[in-house]
Amino acid sequence: MALQNKEFEISKFQRGQVVRFSDKIATEEPLEIRVVFGSAGERRSKNVSITMRTPGNDSELAAGFLLSEGIIKSPSDLVGFESDGAIPEGGDVGNSIFVELSESAEFDPAKFQRHFYATSSCGVCGKASLETLRNQDVKPITESVTIERDLIFKLPDKLRIHQGVFDVTGGLHASGLFDLKGKFVAAREDVGRHNAVDKLIGAQILAKSDQTGELCLSGHLLVVSGRASFELMQKAIVARIPMLVAVGAPSSLAVELAREFNMILIGFTSAERFNIYSGEDQLGSDF
Amino acid sequence: MALQNKEFEISKFQRGQVVRFSDKIATEEPLEIRVVFGSAGERRSKNVSITMRTPGNDSELAAGFLLSEGIIKSPSDLVGFESDGAIPEGGDVGNSIFVELSESAEFDPAKFQRHFYATSSCGVCGKASLETLRNQDVKPITESVTIERDLIFKLPDKLRIHQGVFDVTGGLHASGLFDLKGKFVAAREDVGRHNAVDKLIGAQILAKSDQTGELCLSGHLLVVSGRASFELMQKAIVARIPMLVAVGAPSSLAVELAREFNMILIGFTSAERFNIYSGEDQLGSDF
Repeated sequence: MALQNKEFEISKFQRGQVVRFSDKIATEEPLEIRVVFGSAGERRSKNVSITMRTPGNDSELAAGFLLSEGIIKSPSDLVGFESDGAIPEGGDVGNSIFVELSESAEFDPAKFQRHFYATSSCGVCGKASLETLRNQDVKPITESVTIERDLIFKLPDKLRIHQGVFDVTGGLHASGLFDLKGKFVAAREDVGRHNAVDKLIGAQILAKSDQTGELCLSGHLLVVSGRASFELMQKAIVARIPMLVAVGAPSSLAVELAREFNMILIGFTSAERFNIYSGEDQLGSDF
Repeated sequence: MALQNKEFEISKFQRGQVVRFSDKIATEEPLEIRVVFGSAGERRSKNVSITMRTPGNDSELAAGFLLSEGIIKSPSDLVGFESDGAIPEGGDVGNSIFVELSESAEFDPAKFQRHFYATSSCGVCGKASLETLRNQDVKPITESVTIERDLIFKLPDKLRIHQGVFDVTGGLHASGLFDLKGKFVAAREDVGRHNAVDKLIGAQILAKSDQTGELCLSGHLLVVSGRASFELMQKAIVARIPMLVAVGAPSSLAVELAREFNMILIGFTSAERFNIYSGEDQLGSDF
């Protein structure tokens, strides 16, 4: 946790009083992600992203990012992480991480160069249209979801319990994975909402690193502390999560993407209300 | 405004009731920014960004983006806009905008290629360290700011009045420019907070398009509806705005950048309180 916030001396003004104190602020630092690829004896590396993130869980962040970009297709495409030349446990040190792809992983740097150029290859920009997903040959979700209506009202509070860095700093996005009964699986925080989702999904990839085949988080739902944009929907779909619940508003493209790919999208979720933007027909009889 | 939200049929669940209605949702669509550069007879174009944005004010968005990236140095570097082959008034149609640089504008596509590669060249990622600003030869702010303490408590409400799309959709970031007496200058909204600031600063560039020399918004302050990250500070500094007031939390890098470049940074601003993270010494005797 030490890396995830920094202390600064600041002044707090309220009407009639000033307090000077040492405040904890969410850390924001760049991370360069490089993939190491190719067959034995011909290994090379290539920069695929620089993102501003909160340090910690960098290997998860890299794994999740590579999945949502289509650079890895299955957990077994990853063989290890190396950070800034050294090889710390978990790869969570420094502002540069090398991701070792398996020799059998298909990675074409020339193709990715074009992809990178066309999309900026970052969390918020790029993925410039639904075409990206179509090009990745991503299929619509076919899972039907049975969930109790009352559970949805509780999800923001269930996520809130796990927002440890937010508690300290008041300044982080969070994402959480739950099963369809509302059982907590994992949560992650970051200054970038796309990173919080990449870390969360990446953690599931790393937990299944000996598995071949597509990562499939069917039977789960994703809760995000803020708004639902195109990029977050895209990450959920690639990980085969059938349902996204946002505390904030969705964007138009998020709704369009959810409808095209048959995902359940819920927004403006609180203890008092929520809106269903997509997939109401797929929900169980409680709706 | 029609472009800035889209209508979708949705279901709203509250405890005990369900309402189905047509809801307005903030539009999110990609915008490709291309610069047209070179001397007469040798004009070429180059893609410099793809960003997910709320349509409208695209020429402002492009102008602000190019300034903060260091691609233009002064308003006179811009000579016009062209959108998707057609040339609509203001360049606000379509999802691609061509920005005509003056023949005298210095733009080296090879240099920008590296820059792009190194930074992702987008609003949220990239700008991977303070080095970027140092490399752009950006100087610290030297302006001292005299402002009434009570004005700061009022700024979120003063911005709120101008958040028209947020009123309709509940899902947009906003940024506003005010003078140091609190007089409103302009406000812009977007699904991306970096875009809201680019549009706001870009509007000032376009208003001064016949001027040579650096854009200078000294004597003004920038209010943002959300958090203050590195990128927003960077955009303010390049436009020479001496003070940024955020409704949300700052990141660590935003605070470090503000302190290094001598900017006033205020966060967690409401009618009840605010925190000064940087520049307290530069504020007038009311602090």
